[in-house]
Amino acid sequence: MSSPDGQRGPGATFLDEIREQPRALLALLEHDAEFARVAAAARDRGSSLLRMVGHGSSDNAASYGVYAFGLLARWTALRDSISLTTYYGSKLDMSGSTAIALSQSGRTPDVVEYLQNARRAGAFTIALTNNPSSELAREAEAVLPLSAGPELAVAATKTYLNTVAALGLLAAHVAGEGGSFADGLRVVAAQLEQLIPTLEQRVSELANAFAFVGRMFVIGRGPEFATAREIALKLLETCRIAAEPLTATDLAHGPVAALDSLFPVWTIASDDEMLPAVQEAAARVRETGATLVASGTAAESLEGADYVLPVPIPPLPLLTPILSIVPGQLFAWALARAKGLDPDSPAGLSKVTLAL
Amino acid sequence: MSSPDGQRGPGATFLDEIREQPRALLALLEHDAEFARVAAAARDRGSSLLRMVGHGSSDNAASYGVYAFGLLARWTALRDSISLTTYYGSKLDMSGSTAIALSQSGRTPDVVEYLQNARRAGAFTIALTNNPSSELAREAEAVLPLSAGPELAVAATKTYLNTVAALGLLAAHVAGEGGSFADGLRVVAAQLEQLIPTLEQRVSELANAFAFVGRMFVIGRGPEFATAREIALKLLETCRIAAEPLTATDLAHGPVAALDSLFPVWTIASDDEMLPAVQEAAARVRETGATLVASGTAAESLEGADYVLPVPIPPLPLLTPILSIVPGQLFAWALARAKGLDPDSPAGLSKVTLAL
Repeated sequence: MSSPDGQRGPGATFLDEIREQPRALLALLEHDAEFARVAAAARDRGSSLLRMVGHGSSDNAASYGVYAFGLLARWTALRDSISLTTYYGSKLDMSGSTAIALSQSGRTPDVVEYLQNARRAGAFTIALTNNPSSELAREAEAVLPLSAGPELAVAATKTYLNTVAALGLLAAHVAGEGGSFADGLRVVAAQLEQLIPTLEQRVSELANAFAFVGRMFVIGRGPEFATAREIALKLLETCRIAAEPLTATDLAHGPVAALDSLFPVWTIASDDEMLPAVQEAAARVRETGATLVASGTAAESLEGADYVLPVPIPPLPLLTPILSIVPGQLFAWALARAKGLDPDSPAGLSKVTLAL
Repeated sequence: MSSPDGQRGPGATFLDEIREQPRALLALLEHDAEFARVAAAARDRGSSLLRMVGHGSSDNAASYGVYAFGLLARWTALRDSISLTTYYGSKLDMSGSTAIALSQSGRTPDVVEYLQNARRAGAFTIALTNNPSSELAREAEAVLPLSAGPELAVAATKTYLNTVAALGLLAAHVAGEGGSFADGLRVVAAQLEQLIPTLEQRVSELANAFAFVGRMFVIGRGPEFATAREIALKLLETCRIAAEPLTATDLAHGPVAALDSLFPVWTIASDDEMLPAVQEAAARVRETGATLVASGTAAESLEGADYVLPVPIPPLPLLTPILSIVPGQLFAWALARAKGLDPDSPAGLSKVTLAL
């Protein structure tokens, strides 16, 4: 969004980095052989449990890892508690597990400390980071480069997308299916190249309609719960919306009671085993009179949606979240601008969170 | 809250059940020997991993289980994905793990199905339920009674509190510390008897000030993250507030950017290893101009808090969440009434969620 005299407006960096995602994905794939090697090393160490740690967008991507490792590698994968070992000093035995630290900067102190503890406790330790010369990388037994290139907007986009892709690729290599997953990622990169400019046009209308929205739910289930968490975080940090991620099931267990016509719901519908549950959740949303936004590969299957932002179907179901995050990123960009906010540098945030 | 002619107003059942919590806790302790037996059986089966599943308040209590089992038993405990095995059909090997299903009614279909799958996959299976003759109880190898007595308000209170206590007691028995934990629970029951009437008085002032609030964050960390999740859920379902639970660290990774003077934050401060991080988060909240409510055993240590709802210090740090939930429950009760809502039966909810 350069103006004619070369000056750039609020959100220009954020948008650039959304647009760079297809290239970032291809850059990750240049390191495919390293993913294969690290997967083999984790298998050799007898792992069947994956401990993932990270904050913010990295932690959101870890929600995807639960499904990627559960479905491809048949491993139990969990978003491990950082505080349990780093603050409370619990002495867990972590042998038989792999611990992967997710950190764009590689400098988040409690993530570094977690990894040191995990290594002492017998886990095989991996750093997945955009900065392979960081302290985190030095502390890990294996380093996987996130390869997203410099990310300058405070709100993460391409590092999130590459973290999701990297977790999927690693799981696929553990399962001996790395080749087909990598091929699928190449197709997705091409699909993203087509999708991004199309969505850039479509989100403007939606953004104007949402200029005064103060709260939202974002619903996704299974591998798309990661997408729901990441879209909600983008809306919180760039648009100051109280956006809460929920699974389709969470909604029925309480939160549906809060909905009304001023409380819109974004629903990610992908064409998989959970689609009937997501459709049922969307129907309950509609009953409350709440505005419904539908995205995902099966967005058009949500009856009565007010806004529909579909994404193409990738070669493998587990690749869907790499596409379905994009409507949320672009909506956050457009809505921040409609609200007069700057998604490149939201109030009170810095790119690397060193304290707290 | 009976009126002179015996008629009961909105929220009367919800309040009764909050008041019954000390007795519910003592009723649970009558089954202490069963907890000891089940803990021994889990040890005999070689477990060192605990898989917890449940929805809504039960799932919130599971967040406490991560810390109770991590700190007392040195087990890795996780809130397992239900959809991974029940909808996506992942064939995980669950040997060496214990699976505990948390369900007040014992009738939630996907929780029952999860437990059946877990048993087939080699896990030692436990049902923790308020209905020991339920389908869930029949499918499990061991049954632990929640012993909360009938819970009629749709929004859970005493079943949440007893689920937290039960997970702590089971973890303590696994660690050979069941006796001191049970003694501690008896002290907490007496502390609750004193605390509840005191807080009933104090929450009214707060409720009036919050009558027009539409969104909130609830911050807690470590064992108190469960409390934060449960308070946020009470506010969502009974007061229609978009309340989101966050750890002290989550706040800095994005959500702090959304705060302003119309976006209050409830912070649970307990006197443990995480207190400095919680105090730092509270300071950041104050910088944004947001109203700050402080609760917990260290509530008075949060500088500049607008409202302070302290709770007494229990005999063991891990018992704190059993006390710190009560200010949130009573605030939800008072605020629902101030808003003209009925916490006994929120719109669109039923007590047992059978579908979705």
